Amino acid sequence: MDFDLIIHNGTILTVNPSFDIIENGIVGIRKDRLALVAAKTDDRPPPRAAKTIDAAGGIIMPGLINAHTHLPMTLFRGLADDMALDVWLNEHIFPAEARYLNPETVRWGTLLAAAEMLLAGTTCCCDGYFMEDTVAETLAETGLRAVVGQGVIDFPAPGVADPTDNLAVASRFIQDRLNASALITPSVFCHSPYTCNQNTLQQAKALAEKNGVLFQIHAAETRREFDQIQDTHGLTPVAYLDSLGLLDPGTLLVHCTWLGDKDIDIIARRGARVSHCPESNMKLAAGIAPVPALLAAGITVGLGSDGCASNNDLNLFHEMGTAARLHKAISGQPTVMDAATVVKMATINGAAALGMAHEIGSIETGKQADVIVVDAHRPHMTPVYHPQSHVVYTAGAADVSHVVVSGSLLVADGRPTGLDIDAIIARVNKIAFKIRTGGPA
Amino acid sequence: MDFDLIIHNGTILTVNPSFDIIENGIVGIRKDRLALVAAKTDDRPPPRAAKTIDAAGGIIMPGLINAHTHLPMTLFRGLADDMALDVWLNEHIFPAEARYLNPETVRWGTLLAAAEMLLAGTTCCCDGYFMEDTVAETLAETGLRAVVGQGVIDFPAPGVADPTDNLAVASRFIQDRLNASALITPSVFCHSPYTCNQNTLQQAKALAEKNGVLFQIHAAETRREFDQIQDTHGLTPVAYLDSLGLLDPGTLLVHCTWLGDKDIDIIARRGARVSHCPESNMKLAAGIAPVPALLAAGITVGLGSDGCASNNDLNLFHEMGTAARLHKAISGQPTVMDAATVVKMATINGAAALGMAHEIGSIETGKQADVIVVDAHRPHMTPVYHPQSHVVYTAGAADVSHVVVSGSLLVADGRPTGLDIDAIIARVNKIAFKIRTGGPA
Repeated sequence: MDFDLIIHNGTILTVNPSFDIIENGIVGIRKDRLALVAAKTDDRPPPRAAKTIDAAGGIIMPGLINAHTHLPMTLFRGLADDMALDVWLNEHIFPAEARYLNPETVRWGTLLAAAEMLLAGTTCCCDGYFMEDTVAETLAETGLRAVVGQGVIDFPAPGVADPTDNLAVASRFIQDRLNASALITPSVFCHSPYTCNQNTLQQAKALAEKNGVLFQIHAAETRREFDQIQDTHGLTPVAYLDSLGLLDPGTLLVHCTWLGDKDIDIIARRGARVSHCPESNMKLAAGIAPVPALLAAGITVGLGSDGCASNNDLNLFHEMGTAARLHKAISGQPTVMDAATVVKMATINGAAALGMAHEIGSIETGKQADVIVVDAHRPHMTPVYHPQSHVVYTAGAADVSHVVVSGSLLVADGRPTGLDIDAIIARVNKIAFKIRTGGPA
Repeated sequence: MDFDLIIHNGTILTVNPSFDIIENGIVGIRKDRLALVAAKTDDRPPPRAAKTIDAAGGIIMPGLINAHTHLPMTLFRGLADDMALDVWLNEHIFPAEARYLNPETVRWGTLLAAAEMLLAGTTCCCDGYFMEDTVAETLAETGLRAVVGQGVIDFPAPGVADPTDNLAVASRFIQDRLNASALITPSVFCHSPYTCNQNTLQQAKALAEKNGVLFQIHAAETRREFDQIQDTHGLTPVAYLDSLGLLDPGTLLVHCTWLGDKDIDIIARRGARVSHCPESNMKLAAGIAPVPALLAAGITVGLGSDGCASNNDLNLFHEMGTAARLHKAISGQPTVMDAATVVKMATINGAAALGMAHEIGSIETGKQADVIVVDAHRPHMTPVYHPQSHVVYTAGAADVSHVVVSGSLLVADGRPTGLDIDAIIARVNKIAFKIRTGGPA
């Protein structure tokens, strides 16, 4: 056989540096890598392969990359909505986490998240949570690619009762995961500048640097955080983190809704990356990140869903559509955040935000084979003038027909090849029944 | 048989005046009406019926009502995005309409729209366009419920080459449609205060009043319109329309993105209704309607998708999620536009905006049987704590499994019972090929 997998008869949205769109394209995969990306120029059948997928005129594109999430929070999807942030967090989410999270529930919440992400064309996510050992082990079973970070916070947290252990737990997590899996990459998830003291922040960054892994941190998410850091340190959250030496290309700043022009300069100068989570920011009324200004400053911005308690899904198609529309509405400029820019945020720039753009985020020979097929033979996808427009403005998760991660076919004809959806739903519903009725964990 | 159709084994989101949610509910339909809405309280099988639908634990709710659209514009979906409004309109949309709209293309564009709406759980729409005779005749074939308005504008328009004919054409359209169909209700679609002179506006409203039909009009959509009306008439668009005597409960003001406090007072006092189209307004950077203030003033607000050239779909689930999040972000208040409020906008308040709340918009015995089933057995819909939350924040069009309009089952197990999707897609793709290549119509 020439190839292990061939995908043909679709329009390839390569998301390569020139954003080439290849009509009647063929993608050939050998083992875990893209070996052929080309237009079909004759009537001969596609090259021989162990398996051949007919994209049926649909869109062949890089798998979507979710640059910020908290996977096990699927358990709390829609538990509490439409509330003031402090009521939501202190009266609903924190108590539910404290009471109902354990390795068993985290495992099922992660499996549910994995099923949801795969079915929605997400092939890689950047997760940060607690009991991340369980998240990492569970994700490794699913075939998804992920960056995983054990949470570091100066409060008792699920699985880390004593916060003085937080860095040791995070360090052990990294040691256990480094080089253990090609698909699961450890990182440090430092919660935020307002929940970690200066010493914790700096040691957490030092831990990430020592191991050469990503340092994820929520930053400048709310007005309240902005005011608190300003009052305590006399600096904006971003300037404060910079004053501690935390900003460099290995740092992923999540949210960045409260930034001044100087903050944007700092982020650009340090080469730090940003994860933009528009639906979560909107639903919690946290603020609106100045994304067009970040892009104008040359900052790498990926797209994240955030956790399911504040979104309420893990659907990058929703985030793309919302990101494209929100910033037009806020700026009054219909030309900002055009479809190509937004597709890049959900693919190659998300990859760059995680430090993985050399391996994933576009369909180019030699790169990892993380590829999805979006079915265009649907009324809401008809007609197609510009495939990137449909991906951003009209496609839904349910339009994803095939998902390949590192050469493995994980979704075929809209159904997962490995995960038992019925069993996962049944198990999560059992857990949710306890949460809903206040039963014991 | 006791019933023609029974839907059981689901949670009923009634959207009745007390927003009752009935777990393990049964809906019974006789002919075109709801005859039973109840909880199942015993283990006996559901009542006998000619047909029984098992909702499989999903959500049974009123069909969604799209309170503003231009259906045949599906033909131009994604043709031109991310452009300044005048470039988009004058260089792309107007020329495409002038060249490619004819009764044949309008028919196929309308069929595509009908298929898309039905599959997405929309059971009623309020359309306004040109060649509306063809739109009305085509919709009548599909089983959808609709309010249809022939466009009135002081420019040459598709099908009305001489604008001095515009009112006569609109009048004949109404005469032909009045009482012709239980499902298709005629109306007047007066384009806007900046494209119709005072005489046209007043005569169009008089035509609507004389026939007792809805008067639809775009109003206060853009800053440019606001400034132009202010410069010409010394009044805001809403005050100008009011000065002409056009505002009353039979008038549906579409968009209302540029309103002052006085405008809100005027709309409330006159009892005029508003159609809110958040995704279109955002994508075109037209502005952001002050919806929480409209609701606080007691104004009836429905949700619309607008046409597919500016959205780019006819998906009320997208509009609900966007409306819920947008106004939280803009107001900084996470408690505004809660899930129940938004569900009402897409159902009972949409019905009220069209003057049809006595017949549709909620699941109550005696009303028209316009009912949909939303499948909850999907990863992104798991678990369910509050069904209204899932409908607004995570459900997608593809989660709609069954659609009933006026007692007729139009979608079963996610597939249309009457429309030939493949034929519609093939035909629209042929039309789109001409549009894309600049070929003759």
